[in-house]
Amino acid sequence: MQVAVVTFDGFNELDSFIASALINRCRKDGLEAFITTPTPVVTSMNGVKVTGQRPMEFVTEADVVLIGSGVKTQDVVANDQLISRLRLDPSRQLIGSQCSGALVLARLGLLKDMPACTDIKSRPFVEACDVTVLDAPFHAEGNIATAGGCLASQYLATWVITRVLGEDAARDVIGYVAPVGENQETVERAIRAVHSGEAALS
Amino acid sequence: MQVAVVTFDGFNELDSFIASALINRCRKDGLEAFITTPTPVVTSMNGVKVTGQRPMEFVTEADVVLIGSGVKTQDVVANDQLISRLRLDPSRQLIGSQCSGALVLARLGLLKDMPACTDIKSRPFVEACDVTVLDAPFHAEGNIATAGGCLASQYLATWVITRVLGEDAARDVIGYVAPVGENQETVERAIRAVHSGEAALS
Repeated sequence: MQVAVVTFDGFNELDSFIASALINRCRKDGLEAFITTPTPVVTSMNGVKVTGQRPMEFVTEADVVLIGSGVKTQDVVANDQLISRLRLDPSRQLIGSQCSGALVLARLGLLKDMPACTDIKSRPFVEACDVTVLDAPFHAEGNIATAGGCLASQYLATWVITRVLGEDAARDVIGYVAPVGENQETVERAIRAVHSGEAALS
Repeated sequence: MQVAVVTFDGFNELDSFIASALINRCRKDGLEAFITTPTPVVTSMNGVKVTGQRPMEFVTEADVVLIGSGVKTQDVVANDQLISRLRLDPSRQLIGSQCSGALVLARLGLLKDMPACTDIKSRPFVEACDVTVLDAPFHAEGNIATAGGCLASQYLATWVITRVLGEDAARDVIGYVAPVGENQETVERAIRAVHSGEAALS
């Protein structure tokens, strides 16, 4: 199972790398994440140049697609050519967004029937797309999930790992990366956030 | 004030990027972090190629030096030439380590008079350097701090921001990056972890 962590120019390192690093702790179980970029190299909002591991076209073959966040997401959604390369299929793929990535999901028409989570700065722009924004870090319906607040990227990763490999695998990963001595509470917080975000369904 | 986030080949993305991204939220206040690498390009433990923002020699002029973690830290501490490029001065610089970065601090003789935090995998190797390892996510004495568990990198960043700009600045940053709706608890957890890690001094 392959995960595309879509990462645009101006990206927020927290949003792309927390999700990808957590998911990549499951490589031994066949779940693997790749930084997926529209150009061979992208530069973060803090000037870090990263070489993409996969081209944007990888999103069509990935089993999971996570749209990262950044300071240029407005440019992304205004770029028809770039958006046309994001051919996603929620009937077959798990699809998630982090912070301003919700704008991309909205632009793709994937948030028509559900509310979303995003960060406080992106909120008015997501709402301008006629999407209800929740005061919560994570929300999922079916195969689509959204997370808000950079560090909620651990919840997005928890959701992906749980959906693909089961909750025990997610517990192992979060327990491993947790601050020493805070393992149990960190695991419970992540599992609870994902459960709450899914429970809102009913 | 400039922060060198020392990042070796095989690095853990969580450890270098959480610290650098959090600190870089203070750029408007004159505190700025740079991914600092021994070679022009380093490759993460998950195969992500990142171009360094500063060469290793930057550590001598930086005000703060944080040593990241990775899967090749044993090679780093065995490499006399590489270690000789890490000329740190704890009388003038704030110095911190994340997870296996504690091995580098031990190799540099900076943990002779203090216990340290590290991750569970690095623990036996740090203990083999005659350093006491604490069951805690963060510990600081004077200008030297250590953190253990990837996500404890937010505590290392909290310590740096607090020491340079004050606790209010750290609260602003952690509150901003926190999962939506968990802002206050995330801030208090980080401030408490740093206070506890410093209180252990007395």
